[in-house]
Amino acid sequence: RYGEAESEDQVGVVTGLAWTEVGGDILSIESVVVPGKGQVKPTGQLGDVMKESVQAALSYVRSRSVTFGIKPTLFEKRDVHVHVPEGATPKDGPSAGIAMATSIVSVLTGIPVRRDVAMTGEITLRGRVLPIGGLKEKLLAALRAGITTVFIPKENEKDLAEIPDSVKKALTIRPVSHVDEVIAGALVRVPEPITWVEPEEVPPPPAAPEPAVRPH
Amino acid sequence: RYGEAESEDQVGVVTGLAWTEVGGDILSIESVVVPGKGQVKPTGQLGDVMKESVQAALSYVRSRSVTFGIKPTLFEKRDVHVHVPEGATPKDGPSAGIAMATSIVSVLTGIPVRRDVAMTGEITLRGRVLPIGGLKEKLLAALRAGITTVFIPKENEKDLAEIPDSVKKALTIRPVSHVDEVIAGALVRVPEPITWVEPEEVPPPPAAPEPAVRPH
Amino acid sequence: RYGEAESEDQVGVVTGLAWTEVGGDILSIESVVVPGKGQVKPTGQLGDVMKESVQAALSYVRSRSVTFGIKPTLFEKRDVHVHVPEGATPKDGPSAGIAMATSIVSVLTGIPVRRDVAMTGEITLRGRVLPIGGLKEKLLAALRAGITTVFIPKENEKDLAEIPDSVKKALTIRPVSHVDEVIAGALVRVPEPITWVEPEEVPPPPAAPEPAVRPH
Amino acid sequence: RYGEAESEDQVGVVTGLAWTEVGGDILSIESVVVPGKGQVKPTGQLGDVMKESVQAALSYVRSRSVTFGIKPTLFEKRDVHVHVPEGATPKDGPSAGIAMATSIVSVLTGIPVRRDVAMTGEITLRGRVLPIGGLKEKLLAALRAGITTVFIPKENEKDLAEIPDSVKKALTIRPVSHVDEVIAGALVRVPEPITWVEPEEVPPPPAAPEPAVRPH
Amino acid sequence: RYGEAESEDQVGVVTGLAWTEVGGDILSIESVVVPGKGQVKPTGQLGDVMKESVQAALSYVRSRSVTFGIKPTLFEKRDVHVHVPEGATPKDGPSAGIAMATSIVSVLTGIPVRRDVAMTGEITLRGRVLPIGGLKEKLLAALRAGITTVFIPKENEKDLAEIPDSVKKALTIRPVSHVDEVIAGALVRVPEPITWVEPEEVPPPPAAPEPAVRPH
Amino acid sequence: RYGEAESEDQVGVVTGLAWTEVGGDILSIESVVVPGKGQVKPTGQLGDVMKESVQAALSYVRSRSVTFGIKPTLFEKRDVHVHVPEGATPKDGPSAGIAMATSIVSVLTGIPVRRDVAMTGEITLRGRVLPIGGLKEKLLAALRAGITTVFIPKENEKDLAEIPDSVKKALTIRPVSHVDEVIAGALVRVPEPITWVEPEEVPPPPAAPEPAVRPH
Ligand SMILES: [Ca+2]
Ligand SMILES: [Ca+2]
Ligand SMILES: [Ca+2]
Ligand SMILES: [Ca+2]
Ligand SMILES: [Ca+2]
Ligand SMILES: [Ca+2]
Ligand SMILES: [Ca+2]
Ligand SMILES: [Ca+2]
Ligand SMILES: [Ca+2]
Ligand SMILES: [Ca+2]
Ligand SMILES: [Ca+2]
Ligand SMILES: [Ca+2]
Repeated sequence: RYGEAESEDQVGVVTGLAWTEVGGDILSIESVVVPGKGQVKPTGQLGDVMKESVQAALSYVRSRSVTFGIKPTLFEKRDVHVHVPEGATPKDGPSAGIAMATSIVSVLTGIPVRRDVAMTGEITLRGRVLPIGGLKEKLLAALRAGITTVFIPKENEKDLAEIPDSVKKALTIRPVSHVDEVIAGALVRVPEPITWVEPEEVPPPPAAPEPAVRPH
Repeated sequence: RYGEAESEDQVGVVTGLAWTEVGGDILSIESVVVPGKGQVKPTGQLGDVMKESVQAALSYVRSRSVTFGIKPTLFEKRDVHVHVPEGATPKDGPSAGIAMATSIVSVLTGIPVRRDVAMTGEITLRGRVLPIGGLKEKLLAALRAGITTVFIPKENEKDLAEIPDSVKKALTIRPVSHVDEVIAGALVRVPEPITWVEPEEVPPPPAAPEPAVRPH
Repeated sequence: RYGEAESEDQVGVVTGLAWTEVGGDILSIESVVVPGKGQVKPTGQLGDVMKESVQAALSYVRSRSVTFGIKPTLFEKRDVHVHVPEGATPKDGPSAGIAMATSIVSVLTGIPVRRDVAMTGEITLRGRVLPIGGLKEKLLAALRAGITTVFIPKENEKDLAEIPDSVKKALTIRPVSHVDEVIAGALVRVPEPITWVEPEEVPPPPAAPEPAVRPH
Repeated sequence: RYGEAESEDQVGVVTGLAWTEVGGDILSIESVVVPGKGQVKPTGQLGDVMKESVQAALSYVRSRSVTFGIKPTLFEKRDVHVHVPEGATPKDGPSAGIAMATSIVSVLTGIPVRRDVAMTGEITLRGRVLPIGGLKEKLLAALRAGITTVFIPKENEKDLAEIPDSVKKALTIRPVSHVDEVIAGALVRVPEPITWVEPEEVPPPPAAPEPAVRPH
Repeated sequence: RYGEAESEDQVGVVTGLAWTEVGGDILSIESVVVPGKGQVKPTGQLGDVMKESVQAALSYVRSRSVTFGIKPTLFEKRDVHVHVPEGATPKDGPSAGIAMATSIVSVLTGIPVRRDVAMTGEITLRGRVLPIGGLKEKLLAALRAGITTVFIPKENEKDLAEIPDSVKKALTIRPVSHVDEVIAGALVRVPEPITWVEPEEVPPPPAAPEPAVRPH
Repeated sequence: RYGEAESEDQVGVVTGLAWTEVGGDILSIESVVVPGKGQVKPTGQLGDVMKESVQAALSYVRSRSVTFGIKPTLFEKRDVHVHVPEGATPKDGPSAGIAMATSIVSVLTGIPVRRDVAMTGEITLRGRVLPIGGLKEKLLAALRAGITTVFIPKENEKDLAEIPDSVKKALTIRPVSHVDEVIAGALVRVPEPITWVEPEEVPPPPAAPEPAVRPH
C-alpha cells in the first residue's frame, strides 16, 4: 500500500520523511539510470530548494564515487532520473538530501535499500548532515508507515527530548553527522571501494606512420 | 467519431481517462517515434504534472526496455513525441501515467493497442501503479465511449463499492498494482523480452599500425 | 492582394481559415526549408496551442515521410520554418493543423498547392482530422477571399445545416477524416511514395589494415 | 548626424521607417557577419514581432541565396548580427521586414546600400511585401532626414491620396510587391546569381585500403 | 581607492561614466578572456540594454579584428567575460558601448588602457559613436575621480556650452564620431593591423591513398 | 556543530560572512569539481548578484590559473559546483566573492583551507577586493563562531573605528586590497606557480602519406 514502508528491499527506492501543514508524511524517493551526461533529472513537482538538494547529493556521490565502488567514467554517459511519486503534490525543502544521496548510490551500485529504514537530513557537498525541522511529526509518520529505523541529523539529537517515549521505544533512531553512515546502514550491504587510475590521455597518432618495411 | 473508442486497434494510440469539472472524459494519447536522443516531447497543452508523468513513463520503459523486446540502443537516436489531441484543452495531473507508458511501449514495439481498453493510474519509476481520483466519473465516461475493459489501480479497488452495479456489469474492471500487467493486457500481444549484451567499448586504434610485411 | 486567394499555385503556401472576434478570416501559412536538425521554427505571433499544432503536423509528416516521397534522412540536416504573416496579429488554436501539414508536405516535396483551396481542421499524430469551431464564419471568409474548395473535418459535417445555401452552392465543401485526403486534394499532384531501406550501420574500420602486399 | 540619411553608401546599413506616438522616425538597421550556425542575433531592444520579422527576412534570404550570389554553405559557419541603434529605445512591429532583408543581402554580398534610400514593408517567407501603417508619418520623417527614394508596399499605394503633393514631389516613391524589387533598387548594384550544385556526400573511406602495389 | 581613476595602466580595465538619479559616477569596466566560442558573458547586474550594448561592441571588434591585430581564429575558442564591479548596483543604458569596445580590444591585444582616461558613448555595429545624456554630470564625476581626458560623442559637442569653464579647463575633452579614435587614444599604444588570409578548407583525404611505390 | 568554525582544515570549504536583518552570520561555502566545460554551477538559493559573484571569482581564477599551479587545460573538462548549505535560506550580495575564489583555488589545487579563518569582500575580474557593508555584525558573527582571523577589504579599514576593542583584540583582522593576499593567507600553504607553454596546434595529417619505401 502506498504511504507505507515498501514490501521488499528495492534498488534505488528510499523512504524520506516530509513535514507538511497537516503533519508528517513519508516520501518515496526513486532513482533510475538513463543515458545522459552526468546530470540529474528531478521530477515530482519538486520546488527549487529540493531540486538543488538533488544536485548537491549527486555532486557528493560523483566526487567520491570510488569510495562507493562506482567507476567515475559511468557518469560520462549516464544521467540519474530522481522522481518523487504522488506527482501532483508539490514538495520542497532541503531535508531529503541524504535520502537522495542514498537512492543515487543504491541505483548506481545495484545494492538494494533496506525497506524498513527511513531518513531525514540536509546534505552538504562534503556529505555532512545538517539539521532539519519537524522531527516529531516525521518520526510519527515513520512509525505509522511501519518503519523500524530512522536516520536523523546528529544536531537534531537535542530535539529527542520532546519525542514521546513510546515512539522512541518503537523506533531505532540513529543520529548521524555524515551521509556515509547513512549509506552504510541503509543499504543491505556496504558498498566496496575500488581503486581507480585516471586513464592516460590517448597520444595523438604519429604524424607520418613508418611501416616496418626497408628496401633490400 | 472522436470521443469514442477507436474503431480499430492502432499502434501507439491509448485511451486514458480524465476527470474534469463537468464529469469524466476520455483522452486519446498518441505517440510517434522521431529522430532525437532518447527524450520525450509532450504536446497538447499538458500541465507540468502531466509532463513529468510522461518523463516518468519513458524512464520506466527505458530502464526495462529489454523486458519489452526494445533494444536499448534505439534510444540513442530516437525521441518519442507524445501528443494528447483536442490540443486547445488544458490537461494536467498524474493519472495518465500508465496510459503514457502503454502508448510508448506500443509505438516502440510496433504492437497495436486493443481499441476497447481504457486505463487510469499514476506510474512510478519502477512501474508501480498509484491510486487516482474520480474513479466513478472515469468509469462512466469509459462506458459512454464504448470501452469494455478498464485498468484501474489496485488501491482504488475499495472505491468500487460506490460504483453502480450496471456499470460494473457492463465493464470488465481490472485492478492492477504494476504497469506490466497493463501492458500485457492492453496490447494485442504480449511483448517478448530479448537478451542484450552491452557491446564492448571499441578499443582505440593501435598507436603504429604494423602491416604484415617483413623484409626477406 | 493580401487577404485574398493567392494569384498562382505556390510551393509551401497554404490558405488556412481563422475564426476571430470580428468574424472569419483567411490565414496564409508559409513554409521554407532551412538547415537544421528536423525541428520546426514557428513564427508570426503564434500562441502555444498553434505552436504545438505545428509540432504535431511535423511529427505526422516525418513518421510517414516515405508515403509522401520524402527521404527520412532529409530531416537530419533540415528544419522547417513555418511563418504566418501579418506578423503583428496574435494567432492561436489547433484548427490550422491540417494546413500546417499540407504546407510542410508541399515544401518538402516541391509540389505546389492549388491556389483556390482553403482548409480547417485539427490534426492528430496519426493524421486524423478533428472537428473545429466557427465553421460558418470560416466558410464566409473563404468565399469573400475567392476560394472555391474548402476541406473541413468530417465531424463538422453536421454543422453544414446552418450554412446558407448560397455559400454551399458557391463553394465545393469536402469533409475529410484524414489529412492524407487533404494533401491528395490540395496539392496540384499527389505525392508518390518511395520505398526506403534503412541504411546498415557503417562497420567500424578494421583494427589493423592489411595491405595486399606480400614479400617475394 | 544620427537621425539623418547616411553620409556615404555603406555595406549592411539600411534606413527603415518607424511610426511612433510622436510621429514618424527613421531607423538605422545594421548587420554584421559573425561566426555561428546560420542564425540571426537581433539586438536594440526589439520586441518579439520585430525579432520574428528578422527571422523571416533571414529565412527568405537563405532559401533564395543563390539568386543573390550567396553560397549556401556560407550559412553553415556564420550568424548575422542585426542591430538597431539608439539601443535604449524599444522598437517593435513587422514593417522593418524588407529593410532587414536588404541589410542581410548587403552584408552577405558586400554590396553597399544607396544612402539616400529608405523603405517600409512587412516581408513574407516568399519575399512578398505586405502593407504597413503610418505611411504619411513615415514619408514625412524620410523627407526630414534627407532621403530621396522610398520603397513602400504596393498595397499601400491607395494611401498616397492622403499624402501632401509637396511630399510626393520631393520624394521618389516606389510601390513594390516583392522584396527582390527593393534589393535590386536599394543596393548600388544588382547582386548576380550563381549556379550551385549541392556537393555529393563524401563517400566513406574504403574498409580496407588497397595500395597500388603488386608483387612482381 | 575604488571610485577613483586606476592607479596604474591596466589591460582590459576601462573607466566608463554613468548618469544616475543622484548625479554622475564612474564605472570600472573589466574584461578577461576565458575559453568559449566567441560569445560575451556580461555580469554585474547589467540591464538588457547594457547587455545588448556589450554584444554590439563585441560584434564590432570581431568584424574588424584584423585592424586591431587580432587573429579572427582567436574567437573560435575564446569568450570574453565583461564585468562591471559594485556587483549589487543595477546598471543599464547604451552609453558604455565605446568603453566596452575599448576594454575588449585591450584584453584581446594585451595593450593596457591609459589610467587617466574616461569615456561615454553608444556604439553601433560599424563603430559609429552615438550621443548620450547627462554629459554635465558625467564630466563632473570624471573630474572628481581624477580623470584628465574624456572621450565624448561628437554629437554631444553642442552640450559643452552648458559645462562650467572650470571643468572644461581641468579636463581634455575629445569629441569623437568613431570608436577607432577612442581606441587609438585610450590605449597606451595604437594596435597594429595584421594581414590575414582566410585558410583554405582542408581538402578531404583521397579516397584511396597512393604510396609512392611502383613495381620494378 | 554547524554555524561554527569547521573542526578541521578541509579542501574547498571556506567560511564567508553574511549580513542579515537579524545580525551577522557565517556562511559555509563549499566547492567540488565535477565533469563539465569550465563553468560554475552555483546552488543554495543564491540570488543573481551572488551567482554573478561566483562567475567573477571563477573567471579571475581561470585567467590566472598558472599562478596558482592549476593547468589551464583542467577547465576544458571540469565544472566547479559551488554550494552554500542551509539550502532553504535565500542568500545574495557580492560580498562572498573572495571566499568563492578561495574555495575554488582550494578545490582545484587540493590545498586545504585553514579552519579558523573567515573573510568578506567583493572581487573584481582582476582580483581587486572591493568594500562591503555590515562589517561590525560580520566580525561579531565570526567571533561567536570561533573564528580567529578575518580578511576584510582594505577600504573598510576606516570602519574599524566603530568596532569594540574586545572584538579587535580577540580577532586578527587582516585588511587586504587583492584576493591573492587572501589565498596566500587562508590556505594551509601557498600555491606554487607553474610554467605553462600553450601546446602547438596538432598539424593536420599529410594529404598523402609517404612510406619510407623506395624501389630498387
Ligand atoms: Ca502520502
Ligand atoms: Ca523557491
Ligand atoms: Ca472530449
Ligand atoms: Ca503546475
Ligand atoms: Ca487578414
Ligand atoms: Ca496559451
Ligand atoms: Ca531617432
Ligand atoms: Ca509582444
Ligand atoms: Ca561608485
Ligand atoms: Ca529592460
Ligand atoms: Ca546559520
Ligand atoms: Ca536580483
